[in-house]
Amino acid sequence: MENKIKGVYLVTDRPLCLHHNLAEVVRLAALGGVSLVQLREKEADSRTFLELAKHLKEILKPFSVPLLINDRLDICLAAGADGVHLGQSDLPWWEARRILGEKVIIGLSLETKEDYFSLIHNDPKPPLHYLAISPVFDTDTKTNTKPAWGLTGVRWLKNETHLPIVAIGGIKESNAADVIQAGADSLAVVSAICSAKDPKSATESLSKKFHSLKE
Amino acid sequence: MENKIKGVYLVTDRPLCLHHNLAEVVRLAALGGVSLVQLREKEADSRTFLELAKHLKEILKPFSVPLLINDRLDICLAAGADGVHLGQSDLPWWEARRILGEKVIIGLSLETKEDYFSLIHNDPKPPLHYLAISPVFDTDTKTNTKPAWGLTGVRWLKNETHLPIVAIGGIKESNAADVIQAGADSLAVVSAICSAKDPKSATESLSKKFHSLKE
Repeated sequence: MENKIKGVYLVTDRPLCLHHNLAEVVRLAALGGVSLVQLREKEADSRTFLELAKHLKEILKPFSVPLLINDRLDICLAAGADGVHLGQSDLPWWEARRILGEKVIIGLSLETKEDYFSLIHNDPKPPLHYLAISPVFDTDTKTNTKPAWGLTGVRWLKNETHLPIVAIGGIKESNAADVIQAGADSLAVVSAICSAKDPKSATESLSKKFHSLKE
Repeated sequence: MENKIKGVYLVTDRPLCLHHNLAEVVRLAALGGVSLVQLREKEADSRTFLELAKHLKEILKPFSVPLLINDRLDICLAAGADGVHLGQSDLPWWEARRILGEKVIIGLSLETKEDYFSLIHNDPKPPLHYLAISPVFDTDTKTNTKPAWGLTGVRWLKNETHLPIVAIGGIKESNAADVIQAGADSLAVVSAICSAKDPKSATESLSKKFHSLKE
């Protein structure tokens, strides 16, 4: 599973899909070698969210790319998705693990060092598949985020944990190498793929950069 | 379980809790004889929603009043609530039944006759605990609702189904008797309790009216 996490990780944002609809962005990202897709829907009603999740699951299946659901355990269960991505104001990871079982992927966002300390305080080996460090850089995509971690933050977390680190927030072609060299195991991007005219080549190019530096 | 559904059914709305906080409104409604409480949170993040659900569950436990969660199956599972109330744009009831198991209460809102026909078309005996007819009267509480069913609609549904009917939308002291006589098995109210200066006596008074006409 760890291999699935490493690489380019697409977090969806429908309003940012400027040149193609969401399904097409996801299909093109899969063709471009995306390793993981997270469906993030903060405005959709549950029925729409579920339909989108089922549709993306179908698109990703032939590529064996796992689909994660942001926040909503029930959508994950109903859509047969591969896991969930949890933020600090989502359901606690231990409830998610209890409800979803042992097999699903659960990733957790850390916005501050305190988030990390309270995590390891609870349990020295939390059954999580990755930690997302968010945001690495300032970004317009998500509002109300805490101050950016910067590359220093990525280096710090890499030193602290053996869990794969997903870097998210303001990552693009031009800073990807720095983020990988600081210790990220996965580059999560929103607009760099969603808003690209050619999501396939945007993914390919990030993915090439990742693999050339990481392997 | 049917007995639990019959009576006065409180649907929560935090912004409408004008004189007491939500937990206190629920406690006072329980003291006043409410038969069922539905926690409805359209704006809260998942963590806040869960904390509220757990808190209300604790308040209602000594009264043996079931707590239902609006829409969110995952909150129901995490909080150990007694069931869910589903609208037409929430997850489908068959997914809810599959995910939540046989024991939990599942109620479904019908906004139009077509909603009812598509329900009985799918399965002549859907494993639901009640049908909510919504809205019976026009109301300011919920926006984007379909045209009101009116008392004619309640009579029509009563004639169609053996499932308990929860009437919701614009129900208050002054029209409660008409709604009961039209066939409602439960009076769902939002502002009539949430915004009451004395939620206990508001509940008591609706409950007395219900039981005097229904038993």
